[in-house]
Amino acid sequence: MTIDYFKRISTLTEHLKNENTGMAVITDPSNIYYLTGFYADPHERYMSLFIDTGSEETYLFLPALDKEIAAGIAKVDFIIPISDEQDPFTIIESNIKEKAAKIGIEMNVVTVAHHNGLKGTFPNAEFIDIQPVINHQRAFKSREEIEGLKEAVNIIEKVLEDGLKTIKEGMTEADLVAEFEYLMKKYGAGGPSFSTMVLAGEKAALPHGTPGDRELRNGDFLLIDFGVITRDRYCSDITRTFIIGEASDKQKEIYNIVKASTQAGVDAVKAGVPLKKFDIAARNVIEENGYGEYFNNRVGHGLGIEVHEAPSIHHLNEDIAEKGMLFTIEPGIYIPGYGGVRIEEEVYINENGEAELLTTFPRGLQIIEL
Amino acid sequence: MTIDYFKRISTLTEHLKNENTGMAVITDPSNIYYLTGFYADPHERYMSLFIDTGSEETYLFLPALDKEIAAGIAKVDFIIPISDEQDPFTIIESNIKEKAAKIGIEMNVVTVAHHNGLKGTFPNAEFIDIQPVINHQRAFKSREEIEGLKEAVNIIEKVLEDGLKTIKEGMTEADLVAEFEYLMKKYGAGGPSFSTMVLAGEKAALPHGTPGDRELRNGDFLLIDFGVITRDRYCSDITRTFIIGEASDKQKEIYNIVKASTQAGVDAVKAGVPLKKFDIAARNVIEENGYGEYFNNRVGHGLGIEVHEAPSIHHLNEDIAEKGMLFTIEPGIYIPGYGGVRIEEEVYINENGEAELLTTFPRGLQIIEL
Repeated sequence: MTIDYFKRISTLTEHLKNENTGMAVITDPSNIYYLTGFYADPHERYMSLFIDTGSEETYLFLPALDKEIAAGIAKVDFIIPISDEQDPFTIIESNIKEKAAKIGIEMNVVTVAHHNGLKGTFPNAEFIDIQPVINHQRAFKSREEIEGLKEAVNIIEKVLEDGLKTIKEGMTEADLVAEFEYLMKKYGAGGPSFSTMVLAGEKAALPHGTPGDRELRNGDFLLIDFGVITRDRYCSDITRTFIIGEASDKQKEIYNIVKASTQAGVDAVKAGVPLKKFDIAARNVIEENGYGEYFNNRVGHGLGIEVHEAPSIHHLNEDIAEKGMLFTIEPGIYIPGYGGVRIEEEVYINENGEAELLTTFPRGLQIIEL
Repeated sequence: MTIDYFKRISTLTEHLKNENTGMAVITDPSNIYYLTGFYADPHERYMSLFIDTGSEETYLFLPALDKEIAAGIAKVDFIIPISDEQDPFTIIESNIKEKAAKIGIEMNVVTVAHHNGLKGTFPNAEFIDIQPVINHQRAFKSREEIEGLKEAVNIIEKVLEDGLKTIKEGMTEADLVAEFEYLMKKYGAGGPSFSTMVLAGEKAALPHGTPGDRELRNGDFLLIDFGVITRDRYCSDITRTFIIGEASDKQKEIYNIVKASTQAGVDAVKAGVPLKKFDIAARNVIEENGYGEYFNNRVGHGLGIEVHEAPSIHHLNEDIAEKGMLFTIEPGIYIPGYGGVRIEEEVYINENGEAELLTTFPRGLQIIEL
């Protein structure tokens, strides 16, 4: 994959110059990765990317520990290491000579302490929020990025297919997580893109449950929601729900409603209409079948180099769907104490403004034998 | 494990009342976990814990998705769910009637956007930084917490011992990561406490390298730095460096210097002296042996329910070491293009003010056969 990082910087600076923002300070490691090709989790250490929108010069301040790795990767003009005992703002002050009147920061990421440090270093600057600009830029995926994202989907679908074969009597949710995550690495992923969810029986009613020592038993729903992040840092996110042993009529009813809901959500996707329409289309199917009170969250979220990105697909979002957006459609029915079903797909709005599914795993009800 | 969460809240509110801080808004998921026993990663959704220091009443605002789980776990007075389409600050305003003059926030965690939201909701309040108070409280580990942390160490040491046995010809760094992380889950861990590092040969020179397709070969250094987080969310962090096949004289020399440096660092640990002493004791051994330029970072960091916590053990930290502190001692020698060695222990300053090692894995040079 050959991403043109300079073009990404140019696109961003163009937007920023329109608002007379002289300098951008990028703090989110994912945004730094998006703009430079270099990723590091600085933990509690200081890391940021300064972009002088006038000269388009870029300065990456980072922990001294990471300097050698960054040097071979980061598409920036200057790499400035900061040692553990140094004050980041002293180092910034001596390197950034341009005193911009307007400095853009990501207000959903920059901490109050960081902001205070910047205010001390650039006392005459006005700080403005550039989070929406960056979120918006990242929400549009090129065909090249889609190829990277498809690799993440391919891996997780292979993991799902082969992981299901390891299920046997006496296995717990946590055991199955171990098998899945082992396969992720074996199939070349960097790791899970979020905490792998394997929830059995009544636990499947928890949209954000934690796998534990619950054994898989006949008659259980088995909800699996997981994804990988590839070594190029593309994320996948898919959910399938199975039934173990034999399905009751009620289980089948619930399953089929959710399946129809997912299909309705996917069918609604196209460019040029408000994003809320996709949520409402999926939600209507569940409500019309009398299960509305058991579906209490938005139907989907964007993803890319992070597993949650713009746009948010909820029933009040009036923003218009556009070509290049990629997001999940994942309705569910969650009945406390009983169990739940979720079926999640990844949908791309392609060059023709049409829905294109990245996920391919069959959606029909599958019974798993112990 | 039975942690007294009410006592933790009381200890915190006592400190806050001393500075007339009427309300605390806790945002860091680890701090919320520390104070309530409930952990969730809200991703981009809103979550915070309000503590009224006068009444000691606690309000947990969290994503509606997580409400059911929190209800069974969180030791708080009120749980207030926020749906995806709701504005968190409207919900906060209608629930928090107490208009404190001083509101404490974690300035290293709270984002500018969150701060702006709070300023809008409580326009007459002064916001002060309570990060140091919380960091300080968390830096002191009770014997009970040490038992939880030892479980994390026991698991990772068993993973190390058994994972080494899987090493064979043709294996890559990434393959070995997969084996290790599989064993973590099998042995009951929640998962890795940070990105598992397996670095071979010249890559061992990168303190923060990423495992990849590099095959393990005879003559390689093999640096393994990893840890687990238990289901109770206690973290471990240990490093050992091995040599594959046969060790050269230079490799042995470097290994033995680092081993002596780790020992010197551990030997220096006790209550009542500045933390910098532990760094300097370890650093001196490396410098006296002529490798000073190849050890460029601090010698250690605290850990607990996060893998990086207070205190920071670097050569300028004048803070005094106290009973109850737990941190790593992890000197290393990193020679670019050649390789590196790091040996990392976890040291607790116990009830007698003496160093107590949590890690037990042998430190002698071990040769691994392919």
